[in-house]
Amino acid sequence: LGLHRAGSVGSSHIVMAAALEAGNLAKALPIYADIILKPALQPDQFELSRELVLQELAGLDDDPRQKVMLKLYERFYPAPFGTSPLGTAEQLGALTADKCRELIKKHFNLSRTIFAVAGKYDFGDLCRQIETLFDTDQPDAQPDISAGKSAGKYLHQHHDGAQVHIGLMTPTVPVSSPDYYNAMAAVAVLSGGMSARLFTEVREKRGLCYAVGAKYHTLKNFAGIASYAGTTPDKAQQTADIIIEQFKLLADGISTDEIGRAKVGLKSSLILQS
Amino acid sequence: LGLHRAGSVGSSHIVMAAALEAGNLAKALPIYADIILKPALQPDQFELSRELVLQELAGLDDDPRQKVMLKLYERFYPAPFGTSPLGTAEQLGALTADKCRELIKKHFNLSRTIFAVAGKYDFGDLCRQIETLFDTDQPDAQPDISAGKSAGKYLHQHHDGAQVHIGLMTPTVPVSSPDYYNAMAAVAVLSGGMSARLFTEVREKRGLCYAVGAKYHTLKNFAGIASYAGTTPDKAQQTADIIIEQFKLLADGISTDEIGRAKVGLKSSLILQS
Repeated sequence: LGLHRAGSVGSSHIVMAAALEAGNLAKALPIYADIILKPALQPDQFELSRELVLQELAGLDDDPRQKVMLKLYERFYPAPFGTSPLGTAEQLGALTADKCRELIKKHFNLSRTIFAVAGKYDFGDLCRQIETLFDTDQPDAQPDISAGKSAGKYLHQHHDGAQVHIGLMTPTVPVSSPDYYNAMAAVAVLSGGMSARLFTEVREKRGLCYAVGAKYHTLKNFAGIASYAGTTPDKAQQTADIIIEQFKLLADGISTDEIGRAKVGLKSSLILQS
Repeated sequence: LGLHRAGSVGSSHIVMAAALEAGNLAKALPIYADIILKPALQPDQFELSRELVLQELAGLDDDPRQKVMLKLYERFYPAPFGTSPLGTAEQLGALTADKCRELIKKHFNLSRTIFAVAGKYDFGDLCRQIETLFDTDQPDAQPDISAGKSAGKYLHQHHDGAQVHIGLMTPTVPVSSPDYYNAMAAVAVLSGGMSARLFTEVREKRGLCYAVGAKYHTLKNFAGIASYAGTTPDKAQQTADIIIEQFKLLADGISTDEIGRAKVGLKSSLILQS
């Protein structure tokens, strides 16, 4: 069918996507229904997949920047929401194709699945086909998972390398809040390009590290502003101090210029995002 | 002015960019003319900048994936074209603000500079302003730098980590060639999403590594297809063998489906790129 497939597993969603010629849409959907409703999970394929995730997990040791961000989310969000989508070596070791099939049966919930199509297609035809393909006796929506405690505060993990990788995260409003755009603007003031505060204060004025930034990170009901800096051991404390100071200084006010830049930045990233 | 600045140094170009409100364009240009024609390079700022580049260079040890790609370009392209824009610690140690000023005077060439604006502006006014601001007695275009030899072949660099990082690169046509789109399609067949050959053969069928891909990389007169794989020591040889095999198999033909997918992929990335 000439499908251009894509897929990803996040901490709260699994995404399956494809780009294809409009004329092939009706032929592609039954394949996706099959993948979603009746995953084969053949033993040899399952073993290969587990091997790959274990490799990816081990590979994090060669990618300390990603590792520190995964650790940060894990400690910041109330358990189990911050859990890394990769899991742990122990969890992966205990997984079998049967357990996986059971998980899918219990927790993949079509009543909470979003289906989106963009392009040239007939809305009525598409809805009829989707309703036929996914007409299953799936259980109703599961109750929401209840949130535990977040680990929070400090974690120091030893790492043999020339650098120190710092991750910092502070709570803010989730995407559903009326203050969502205020939070986004605050992050843009901290970290929107070379004129933003973290870049100017940490990098340009003090030369503390070449990589520093902040971003808005959200799950459905929780959100935070996460900051990353890669620096050297002798400059790590000052880097952390200045980042925290810059987070606090946001409360003292933001200039008209900064808000102007933040708006331009947010608008252009909205227009240019795919 | 609420400028949203951006800048980068590549192996053949320096890029300076800004996003701003259309009404501020005429006020921003004189500032850019100043930055380009009369860089201050104050001693303390210069030292800070050198420090940051040295830090970035040291930081590569914590980012073996980027490190292997920089080494790959360095050996693949004829000297000096593959030189990393970061330089070496020795070169950075020998650099002074005065030498830097001299380099800029000798080699920054306005007759070879491209100026681009998108948005709401008056073309005539803009051209007049640019001509006034940049009306200098700059030298004519310098002769092209002559290409030396490429180091090529194998390089093994020791690395303490759980993974082996493999970089492979083979010559192809540069962007000016009539075969450019054929080269891009070939790369898309090798590495355009989850249905592409490298992903399928190296990852899905054999589980050799979770990260594998190829990309087209070009300078003005030279280009190559570069491949990266991150794998484990016991699977490194087979990973390299299969990648090389997949590069060779391209010559045996490409199916209609694959070309269809490649076209869809290239078109959508063209539409979605900023």
